[in-house]
Amino acid sequence: MTTHAITGRELGVAVIGYAFMGKAHSHAWRNVAALHPGAPGVRQQVLVGRDADAVTVAAAQFGWAESATDWHAVLERDDIDVVDVCVPGHLHAEVAIAALEAGKHVIAEKPLANTMAEAEKMVATAQAARERGVHSMVGFNYRRVPALALARQHVAAGRIGDVRQVRIAYLQDWLADEAAPMVWRLRRELAGSGALGDLASHAVDQVRFLLGQEVTGVNALTETFVTQRAGTSGPEDVTVDDAAWSTMRTSGGAVVSLEVTRMATSRKNALGIEVYGSTGAIRFDLEQLNQLDVCLDGADAFSRVMVTEPGDPYIDGWWPPGHVLGWDATFTHQASDFLAALAAEEEPTPSFEDGLAVQRVLAAIEASAAQDGTHVRVEQI
Amino acid sequence: MTTHAITGRELGVAVIGYAFMGKAHSHAWRNVAALHPGAPGVRQQVLVGRDADAVTVAAAQFGWAESATDWHAVLERDDIDVVDVCVPGHLHAEVAIAALEAGKHVIAEKPLANTMAEAEKMVATAQAARERGVHSMVGFNYRRVPALALARQHVAAGRIGDVRQVRIAYLQDWLADEAAPMVWRLRRELAGSGALGDLASHAVDQVRFLLGQEVTGVNALTETFVTQRAGTSGPEDVTVDDAAWSTMRTSGGAVVSLEVTRMATSRKNALGIEVYGSTGAIRFDLEQLNQLDVCLDGADAFSRVMVTEPGDPYIDGWWPPGHVLGWDATFTHQASDFLAALAAEEEPTPSFEDGLAVQRVLAAIEASAAQDGTHVRVEQI
Amino acid sequence: MTTHAITGRELGVAVIGYAFMGKAHSHAWRNVAALHPGAPGVRQQVLVGRDADAVTVAAAQFGWAESATDWHAVLERDDIDVVDVCVPGHLHAEVAIAALEAGKHVIAEKPLANTMAEAEKMVATAQAARERGVHSMVGFNYRRVPALALARQHVAAGRIGDVRQVRIAYLQDWLADEAAPMVWRLRRELAGSGALGDLASHAVDQVRFLLGQEVTGVNALTETFVTQRAGTSGPEDVTVDDAAWSTMRTSGGAVVSLEVTRMATSRKNALGIEVYGSTGAIRFDLEQLNQLDVCLDGADAFSRVMVTEPGDPYIDGWWPPGHVLGWDATFTHQASDFLAALAAEEEPTPSFEDGLAVQRVLAAIEASAAQDGTHVRVEQI
Amino acid sequence: MTTHAITGRELGVAVIGYAFMGKAHSHAWRNVAALHPGAPGVRQQVLVGRDADAVTVAAAQFGWAESATDWHAVLERDDIDVVDVCVPGHLHAEVAIAALEAGKHVIAEKPLANTMAEAEKMVATAQAARERGVHSMVGFNYRRVPALALARQHVAAGRIGDVRQVRIAYLQDWLADEAAPMVWRLRRELAGSGALGDLASHAVDQVRFLLGQEVTGVNALTETFVTQRAGTSGPEDVTVDDAAWSTMRTSGGAVVSLEVTRMATSRKNALGIEVYGSTGAIRFDLEQLNQLDVCLDGADAFSRVMVTEPGDPYIDGWWPPGHVLGWDATFTHQASDFLAALAAEEEPTPSFEDGLAVQRVLAAIEASAAQDGTHVRVEQI
Repeated sequence: MTTHAITGRELGVAVIGYAFMGKAHSHAWRNVAALHPGAPGVRQQVLVGRDADAVTVAAAQFGWAESATDWHAVLERDDIDVVDVCVPGHLHAEVAIAALEAGKHVIAEKPLANTMAEAEKMVATAQAARERGVHSMVGFNYRRVPALALARQHVAAGRIGDVRQVRIAYLQDWLADEAAPMVWRLRRELAGSGALGDLASHAVDQVRFLLGQEVTGVNALTETFVTQRAGTSGPEDVTVDDAAWSTMRTSGGAVVSLEVTRMATSRKNALGIEVYGSTGAIRFDLEQLNQLDVCLDGADAFSRVMVTEPGDPYIDGWWPPGHVLGWDATFTHQASDFLAALAAEEEPTPSFEDGLAVQRVLAAIEASAAQDGTHVRVEQI
Repeated sequence: MTTHAITGRELGVAVIGYAFMGKAHSHAWRNVAALHPGAPGVRQQVLVGRDADAVTVAAAQFGWAESATDWHAVLERDDIDVVDVCVPGHLHAEVAIAALEAGKHVIAEKPLANTMAEAEKMVATAQAARERGVHSMVGFNYRRVPALALARQHVAAGRIGDVRQVRIAYLQDWLADEAAPMVWRLRRELAGSGALGDLASHAVDQVRFLLGQEVTGVNALTETFVTQRAGTSGPEDVTVDDAAWSTMRTSGGAVVSLEVTRMATSRKNALGIEVYGSTGAIRFDLEQLNQLDVCLDGADAFSRVMVTEPGDPYIDGWWPPGHVLGWDATFTHQASDFLAALAAEEEPTPSFEDGLAVQRVLAAIEASAAQDGTHVRVEQI
Repeated sequence: MTTHAITGRELGVAVIGYAFMGKAHSHAWRNVAALHPGAPGVRQQVLVGRDADAVTVAAAQFGWAESATDWHAVLERDDIDVVDVCVPGHLHAEVAIAALEAGKHVIAEKPLANTMAEAEKMVATAQAARERGVHSMVGFNYRRVPALALARQHVAAGRIGDVRQVRIAYLQDWLADEAAPMVWRLRRELAGSGALGDLASHAVDQVRFLLGQEVTGVNALTETFVTQRAGTSGPEDVTVDDAAWSTMRTSGGAVVSLEVTRMATSRKNALGIEVYGSTGAIRFDLEQLNQLDVCLDGADAFSRVMVTEPGDPYIDGWWPPGHVLGWDATFTHQASDFLAALAAEEEPTPSFEDGLAVQRVLAAIEASAAQDGTHVRVEQI
Repeated sequence: MTTHAITGRELGVAVIGYAFMGKAHSHAWRNVAALHPGAPGVRQQVLVGRDADAVTVAAAQFGWAESATDWHAVLERDDIDVVDVCVPGHLHAEVAIAALEAGKHVIAEKPLANTMAEAEKMVATAQAARERGVHSMVGFNYRRVPALALARQHVAAGRIGDVRQVRIAYLQDWLADEAAPMVWRLRRELAGSGALGDLASHAVDQVRFLLGQEVTGVNALTETFVTQRAGTSGPEDVTVDDAAWSTMRTSGGAVVSLEVTRMATSRKNALGIEVYGSTGAIRFDLEQLNQLDVCLDGADAFSRVMVTEPGDPYIDGWWPPGHVLGWDATFTHQASDFLAALAAEEEPTPSFEDGLAVQRVLAAIEASAAQDGTHVRVEQI
């Protein structure tokens, strides 16, 4: 009978934040070694939150050795190598910068920050840290959907030719009901923006990821359909967008149509992506995340592929063909890639610079929307 | 044994044009009595075209009693009651106006005309004719898809609440191949515009039809991805758009995203419509034209309905449930509605005014696209 | 101005029966020349029915020159070349045999007959007639769905390898409601059988058509879930099956699973076919009759093809790609193929022998079902 | 800063077997506490396998404290409360019986055993153990697909009325290629049967689970399409079925059609279930395991529901609506239910008796297939 010891090279991880994203990232740290054994080992050391009782319960539940309430103190610990920032957006910059300066590798949830100024400061800090061998990443987890990683491979290999049109929409309905109450995500000072920062950030990242191109200019519009919602003591103003639209041009000459909303009655988490090229096309739907529709190399129709085959991106650690993965797998893959980059002493992707590039497009969208949809060049931001 | 006589009240029909649309409209006139026996009877009298030999063959094939080459002469005949204008767009105004002035009821194919000036003159003529009991209609046949007629009923009955967002895209791929040759539809002087007039006209009409609202303002962009194509004697310039995008606001406060293209590799005739309201949603795809996805009255998911049940719009003349209709049925339904309106001495819909309203939106889209997507109010056109 | 004359070589057609099938066949005769101009011309001469008033109205509506009540008299007319038998199944044999003996070419609706004895007599008559240049066909119209005709081409060309498994189900729901009243189709003496003759006949014909193989043995079961239904004067016994199942072996070593029912709540006209071979597979659904899912030549996934491309079976007479056909098109194609065979002086397919072969399988199914599912070899029938 | 201690009431778990199922069950034990915190805590104590080196690596990878090679020794340990049997089927009986006799709670992977005799002995042991408060369960994990658990609720609540027809098929293609080599699963002495035990066992369990009825009689057929495959030293005989079919009657008067195969080219893991009742219907596809199509309470069409809403079975421990679960979640749910039953001192379901009932139906299928499909009553087995 053999008892295996925890090896010395395991990396100690701290997650800051224990709500939805903290739970999802905890799931990833708990499972990454089992599913991707090639990556460096990790130790789920400490989960950090403001409410001592609640974070204690969460830490026990999610598999952490400890809980803590003071993230500054955690940054000083020698047994913490990785800090994973899952706090609300307005705190990303403060925590991530401190962690990098403390010499910790950092994952920051998306979007990178609520403002361009914060994002730029984060990038500067990340660049300086990188010089010292300290690495960072922004958590656009949908890059790690196997079907989307495969889509990128097909586009990069030229199998759909020159990309001309991208249709991307992210449709949710959790605010469609006027009676849905006020929440922090609907306050500009905390959330930065609404569907834009939350959903369009994913969409813009996918455009950059799938095409390997930059967004160069936008026309845009945003809308708040329900302008007041019930707060704890009466109606309160909603100060972010419910929905946003943009037509975008890219550095390679493609045109992208983007629509994001939290008001699409009956659509739960519908990130739909269509990419049309000169010799093929690709289609994806997040609600069917194990599938990819591909029309490659001059074919005339979509073929519906289950992206669960040996050799498909990220699949080898999982199950036999047709045994589908869940949404949570994207975080496990993200953790695996992050660890692999650390082991290779390379900067993981998407970098904070990628996060900033997305932020700049979102800022251009807001600027255009504020001017009745006038064209805004992204480099002007 | 009984031989039935053709009754005196049958309406004599002439179709001007015998290409794609002329064939489709001929199909409708040949079948309308059999499938919609309540409508006034019609006589397929004469098919008109410029090439005498070709139109003779076509007339025999499509079931017409005669063929002719001179449409002016046809307008003078007493046995012609209805003139159905299936010529290219730049000739719509001339033929339709002459026919109305000759006292013939007129159907004009969509879009109503290639220019606002022509469209306005057509409307003026139609209004004057109407005073004399002479009626006209523009051929937005997709209003007669049973599923879309049912969708309009649901919206009008309030079953999806206040409409907030409409997503409408019309995707084709017949120009995706750069080697596809030059055709008249790619010349501005003949076709007026490209995907815009051909495809967006349907889409804008559907927005007005389904919502019962006007488009009030647009931001738009158009693109020609392949700027030259092989003509009979060397490369020629493509002078119309390959694709167009618009974000539109409506009189009722909805926002519409529109995308039309002939470059969407692998998509054949994909008119997709999604309408999201405060208490429901509707989804449609022309390639599955017998289906409608409905989420009504606060339901939480789409129900996929076959619109082939007794009582569904236009269905009673056809087959039992589940026996699907083809694209051609829309023209038969259009003919039936046109005849029913004549019998009731009412103006059929969509009227030339409806056609002009669509035209005005298309002109606003072109104006916005010419100014880098600046917002254009439709009433300014 | 040119008036085209009806040529002397046009074939005079009589349809016997003016209910559902009579209407569908009339639609085909009315449209065949327009959509398939290569076939011999036809003249819609006479529609025959028992109720003089009703058939007069129907004849006028469906485009027939005359109506009649005495089909025997129609068979004696020199101006009738083709007799199209759309009466209920128990009358097929009598009318078809008389028509063939009168020297008329015959189409008999499916199933060929209600009994093996009738079917065998029809075949004998057809064989004798064929010697005299008089031809016949049984109306398995789904052979003329373009997608299924294309499927057969793929199978015949070996593009899915050796067929191993076929899954075929025909699901309807018009009897699911216990309150649905008694109708003639539920009486054995008139209808012969229930879902079996009506639906399984199509399915068995498709197995033979798609595979080019014979069914050699069956195990089967039938069920009547609602054994009494409301008649005009009280409850009456349902004496046919509501549903039937069979596992069948074919001459080429494939195994077929078959299920047909009129009790599948929410399914309207769902004929679903899946064919799995050693190197590919094919999938079809009648409710999406313009689509075919194909996995050919060792591919690993289904490609969803719109069977509306130039060169696809029957498509050249119709519309551009993506402009879908309806269920009625199958009858138009059937008429076209029938006429083309007459022009070529060949026996059309499927022949009465094909109809008999299907009948024999249905009889084997009934025999097996009567013996608790014991294996029955088809050649024993 | 708080460090949480492992409480005394945690249950020590041993998994026997570390291949595909051992990995999947390990995943469940690793995650159950995080996702279903209400259940008793567990300690991943020991992973057992025959190959010491391999199981040591696997234990470390999958999160186990220890590995071991001697399962008998593990059964004697006081710190082991639960034994999870993931060995090949021919060893289920030996390990499970010994574990129960050692006072350990047991989960046995499905199918319960390879033979009726083994299964019956396991049931007897389980019944005796139950008297002593020692519990057991068979691992039909698809009962824990949220969509199928919801389906069962709908059926049990009468929302589809009396069930009349069930269509169930489990289609895979990993043996479609004749060149696929010999493996242990194709040897009768090790695997018991082929698609039958592996796939039909799931299907039969679902029939019992969804309907709450017993299978009373079967007609069946099995087939081995590829009778020899390449072994390590030349061709070897395949001694199990590649595919199986059965028509089954249930205690409540329903008829079930069943088809299972490993030869369905292009189908990866397609467990499709359709249940038709007198007032509704339900449809499910394992490849889209977060969806359920429901037609309830007399509705006329399928509504496509994402089973990821608060209150849906098993969902509350997971993510917000629309964030889909993977196949692995079924094992986590199974572990949670097992633990909850232990906490409640109740026998978990499905019990070994349930496993035996499935086994009996599989045996009836084999008996019928051996007699050319003759009807076999299950109680005769």
